[in-house]
Amino acid sequence: MRAWEVAGSFGLDNLRLAERADPQPGPGEVRLRLRAASPNYRDLLMVRGEYDPRQPLPLVPCSDGSAVVEAVGEGVERCRPGDRVCPLFAPRWIAGEPTRERVRATLGGPLDGTLAEAMVVPAEGVVPLPDYLTDLEAATLPCAAVTAWSALVTHGGVKAGDTVLVMGTGGVALFALQIARLCGARVIATSSSDEKLERARALGAWEGINYRAVPEWGRRARQLTGGAGVDHVVELGGAETLPQSLKAVRLGGTVSVIGVLSSQQAPLSVVPILMQQVRAQGILVGHRESFEAMLRAFAAHRLRPVVDAVFPFAEAPAAFHHLASGRHFGKIAIEIG
Amino acid sequence: MRAWEVAGSFGLDNLRLAERADPQPGPGEVRLRLRAASPNYRDLLMVRGEYDPRQPLPLVPCSDGSAVVEAVGEGVERCRPGDRVCPLFAPRWIAGEPTRERVRATLGGPLDGTLAEAMVVPAEGVVPLPDYLTDLEAATLPCAAVTAWSALVTHGGVKAGDTVLVMGTGGVALFALQIARLCGARVIATSSSDEKLERARALGAWEGINYRAVPEWGRRARQLTGGAGVDHVVELGGAETLPQSLKAVRLGGTVSVIGVLSSQQAPLSVVPILMQQVRAQGILVGHRESFEAMLRAFAAHRLRPVVDAVFPFAEAPAAFHHLASGRHFGKIAIEIG
Amino acid sequence: MRAWEVAGSFGLDNLRLAERADPQPGPGEVRLRLRAASPNYRDLLMVRGEYDPRQPLPLVPCSDGSAVVEAVGEGVERCRPGDRVCPLFAPRWIAGEPTRERVRATLGGPLDGTLAEAMVVPAEGVVPLPDYLTDLEAATLPCAAVTAWSALVTHGGVKAGDTVLVMGTGGVALFALQIARLCGARVIATSSSDEKLERARALGAWEGINYRAVPEWGRRARQLTGGAGVDHVVELGGAETLPQSLKAVRLGGTVSVIGVLSSQQAPLSVVPILMQQVRAQGILVGHRESFEAMLRAFAAHRLRPVVDAVFPFAEAPAAFHHLASGRHFGKIAIEIG
Amino acid sequence: MRAWEVAGSFGLDNLRLAERADPQPGPGEVRLRLRAASPNYRDLLMVRGEYDPRQPLPLVPCSDGSAVVEAVGEGVERCRPGDRVCPLFAPRWIAGEPTRERVRATLGGPLDGTLAEAMVVPAEGVVPLPDYLTDLEAATLPCAAVTAWSALVTHGGVKAGDTVLVMGTGGVALFALQIARLCGARVIATSSSDEKLERARALGAWEGINYRAVPEWGRRARQLTGGAGVDHVVELGGAETLPQSLKAVRLGGTVSVIGVLSSQQAPLSVVPILMQQVRAQGILVGHRESFEAMLRAFAAHRLRPVVDAVFPFAEAPAAFHHLASGRHFGKIAIEIG
Repeated sequence: MRAWEVAGSFGLDNLRLAERADPQPGPGEVRLRLRAASPNYRDLLMVRGEYDPRQPLPLVPCSDGSAVVEAVGEGVERCRPGDRVCPLFAPRWIAGEPTRERVRATLGGPLDGTLAEAMVVPAEGVVPLPDYLTDLEAATLPCAAVTAWSALVTHGGVKAGDTVLVMGTGGVALFALQIARLCGARVIATSSSDEKLERARALGAWEGINYRAVPEWGRRARQLTGGAGVDHVVELGGAETLPQSLKAVRLGGTVSVIGVLSSQQAPLSVVPILMQQVRAQGILVGHRESFEAMLRAFAAHRLRPVVDAVFPFAEAPAAFHHLASGRHFGKIAIEIG
Repeated sequence: MRAWEVAGSFGLDNLRLAERADPQPGPGEVRLRLRAASPNYRDLLMVRGEYDPRQPLPLVPCSDGSAVVEAVGEGVERCRPGDRVCPLFAPRWIAGEPTRERVRATLGGPLDGTLAEAMVVPAEGVVPLPDYLTDLEAATLPCAAVTAWSALVTHGGVKAGDTVLVMGTGGVALFALQIARLCGARVIATSSSDEKLERARALGAWEGINYRAVPEWGRRARQLTGGAGVDHVVELGGAETLPQSLKAVRLGGTVSVIGVLSSQQAPLSVVPILMQQVRAQGILVGHRESFEAMLRAFAAHRLRPVVDAVFPFAEAPAAFHHLASGRHFGKIAIEIG
Repeated sequence: MRAWEVAGSFGLDNLRLAERADPQPGPGEVRLRLRAASPNYRDLLMVRGEYDPRQPLPLVPCSDGSAVVEAVGEGVERCRPGDRVCPLFAPRWIAGEPTRERVRATLGGPLDGTLAEAMVVPAEGVVPLPDYLTDLEAATLPCAAVTAWSALVTHGGVKAGDTVLVMGTGGVALFALQIARLCGARVIATSSSDEKLERARALGAWEGINYRAVPEWGRRARQLTGGAGVDHVVELGGAETLPQSLKAVRLGGTVSVIGVLSSQQAPLSVVPILMQQVRAQGILVGHRESFEAMLRAFAAHRLRPVVDAVFPFAEAPAAFHHLASGRHFGKIAIEIG
Repeated sequence: MRAWEVAGSFGLDNLRLAERADPQPGPGEVRLRLRAASPNYRDLLMVRGEYDPRQPLPLVPCSDGSAVVEAVGEGVERCRPGDRVCPLFAPRWIAGEPTRERVRATLGGPLDGTLAEAMVVPAEGVVPLPDYLTDLEAATLPCAAVTAWSALVTHGGVKAGDTVLVMGTGGVALFALQIARLCGARVIATSSSDEKLERARALGAWEGINYRAVPEWGRRARQLTGGAGVDHVVELGGAETLPQSLKAVRLGGTVSVIGVLSSQQAPLSVVPILMQQVRAQGILVGHRESFEAMLRAFAAHRLRPVVDAVFPFAEAPAAFHHLASGRHFGKIAIEIG
């Protein structure tokens, strides 16, 4: 089987297509034949060596993907050859608290990821897919969609009538927009592009703020709620955007801390957290139980992930370059199978 | 001002229209000019003397109603004459736990209720209304809609993709259907009438079960979920229907115990509660904070309460007779102002 | 290895000591050498055929026990030979919701239980033991103590200053008493024996009620709290005692529905649940994550389980007879290793 | 009546004892005769003009205090002359979410505070005191103790067996230590003084870390838990100490953000929050319902607040100087009545 790997040293230029032997599933494991993969910003950082410089190479990148079960190891009862599944980002995190044992092994680093024709994972570490999703759509879910679901539903308890501010229009952001809508919430989207804000509105956003045009977008968001502030911010920017998020959020509201897009350290005061009685909740993707609950909701509503562009397997590096450009709206998919 | 009261002894035949002096608001109080009222099953039982035979008479019945603030007492800052509001079922329950102090005084018994042209309540005990609701629609909310919201949202934490079984098509039931839909849940409705089930589907129900035709409707509901069981049952029947509810609900699911429609005592086993790890949650309407959250959700979605029929104030007893007939679908309103 | 089994037909007289081959651990499994077992009321009902008459025989009874890991199958990393552990009641329920897949296979029926010299369980289905507990003490935990912890902590959120009513002085009851004390709660114990109430007080109970002397013990419990009612009832009696529990509990309080000691069906009204806004929460033992959290608490406080009597393995049936007599106070242990 | 006020301009030197007319309670209000007050760090900042430079002067400082009800206004039923009470920090926050309406008016700024012989507050804005507490002890509770309770119990859900890191040995810190102990948690205390750590151990702390001697005290705290990290950090330092707190806390743990002792802005990365899936929860004292629950717990355990030193009313400025010195251990009280 073939796999893309970062080899030798980090960098997008060091992505190469390698030939590897098909991995064999041990007891309790399954071999997946990948159908599609989808890069996240974390994968880009990983390939560049900016996520964890101590990551051993070679590494097969990407944690999002969809697959068909091809072979099962001894004692496997959860799935059978032919099942359409997604692998979990953290294959050992089935439910409950995020212990080290459960979250240290994740796809796309430190474990090999989904940008390959085949991979072996624990049988417990996959979720069956509803029929209505295409392989490309399903490939966008394990990291990006589950992160948004964990933030808003598992940890956030977003309810009908709440106002949710979603930062940007990348993969996690658009899933957050769509999930908040499923939950009956109103969504304020932010972007540097009016055209993207228009598309966000078409997906159900209630309002849009161009943060280039309105640097004090936190204040603007607060005004849009009549001065009370938004109930929930899906914070994807990091330390640089956090001050505006804290201006947007209501007393007693929640900021889901997810992304690391902007510089990772910035002068920050904790006073707004204190004075607004804000809950800042770090989100580390999520467990299988969240993934399964999300799929039930998606299937009930026939929710379609937003796939911005599709690249053939042979041109996987171009998908990373597209992601790095920031021109995408939603997720980028790579067709494998 | 005029008020309907049960006087002398209990019974629908003892409802009479009385002339009373306009009540004067004391410090911290407001006088409401009622616009509309709406009877619930509790009010019917109350008038008949079946809810609490020790209730002193005369009593002005009904706890659901909408009004305009007419006069405010000393020190009132929360509202002003002209504000459109609903009074709370329990005017002293603003938020938090249901203490005796907070829930013992409720409209329509032991306190006089909304079937009058004017009433005095604490200024804290009203909620401002969104413009989009008519007076008749708003009059249906304080007891019936808040009960459904408390059951599903405040206590139930219903989330997108959940399956909710709603019993019947009365006032609370249809609000539960509509609220569950706002939250992204799928709804199974039950009724003894195929025609009402059709109307429930038109309101967004996913499935309907005619419990006359299918006495084992709990099992049928379970089958509809692929055998897993429903996540949440809005139980409006009491001890008689509870056994079927416990057959419908999933492992770890919730049964909101609300209604007292059927006979109030029946042979019951607690084993299904235990073996299914079910949570049976009694619901006592709810507090102002729930009401306010519900109105935000309703306004964001322009949700319209289902008003089955409207009676003029002079014919209020006819509204009770219509309620007693069980022919209604949703709420019955009485026009006052 | 030797194992006690119910063979031929149900009944305490059909318990016999059988010789079986040592079971071999498959991939992901471990073989335990049992050190001690401990019967619960569920085991007594199981042996008598009263719990599930369709249970196939022979069956090794008991779900509580302690052991040493003797051999590990392929791929096992969680434990090593020599580790002191308890097996889980539901070996596949690690964390999260109680799905059918997770809770249908439980020790002591339908799976063979702990009243044997050896058994094989999934490596995921054991918890390591703190050193301070003896084998006999540890043998009392998996079902009885975890049930009490799930009721009070995982589901109940009991907090310092709460008042908890614990029914009786059996195994689960005394763990509930001890755990409620760890959490800073006050405990009201009930019993038919003044002498047992005295012993409950010595364990930290704040008050005791002899339900023989005070048939209206629910009312008495309410009085002890100044009329407000208790925050939490650990209901171990079933449908017969539930009416008194509902008199004891406060508005908005919780009744943990656990036991099936009294007759399983009784005329019951749901009105008190509704009017008190009570939460009746069925408790199905609990998952490994609860067990682990409980052990951390027990170890931090060096909490000692109450072992009423110890029987040698050869006299296991006498342990069941002692349990059936109702004369015990706390748990009964059977020494194996 | 006499009151200490900051007048003219900010600064400890501008505290002066003024003679004022006794305030008269309006409808729904009560006049309190103060018995004792207790300054917090917030009060020190307020007097210095460092908390809110726009605060109008004169201002009576302090939010902690105890009192006797002296006179009640029209319509007051909650309390009677002679009742021993504490006023609430936020007299309009009875329960529920922290809305602006509920939390903007607080004692000791913007409202006049407790460093006076008399004050008027809403009757809803006091809590009755248990007999066992002295006036001086009770005076320490409204701000300092309720903050610790809200952090650990209302928002934190601390449970038996958890490990809680408490920063320093000031008023909130020692209440956090004592409350964590009530809840069955283990406490790690930090201080720059070995002598204070010894006293913290005498109060029930499990371990102490001298942060002068061990600048990497976050790492040390993690080691003390066997590498897993502490479940809960009571963060009283602000942006400067937060990085160590994030090293101490476990995956999925909680940091209660309370204090503003150190400089209010520091270079901060949000990555540790994200990677540890930490919840950083701002704590804004708390509502009456929390205060009442805390008093039930305190009374059940006869918990005694730690009063470091007592100053006579005439020497109130000395109490502020003592607080500013940082030499105190626990709370400082000022005797008034």
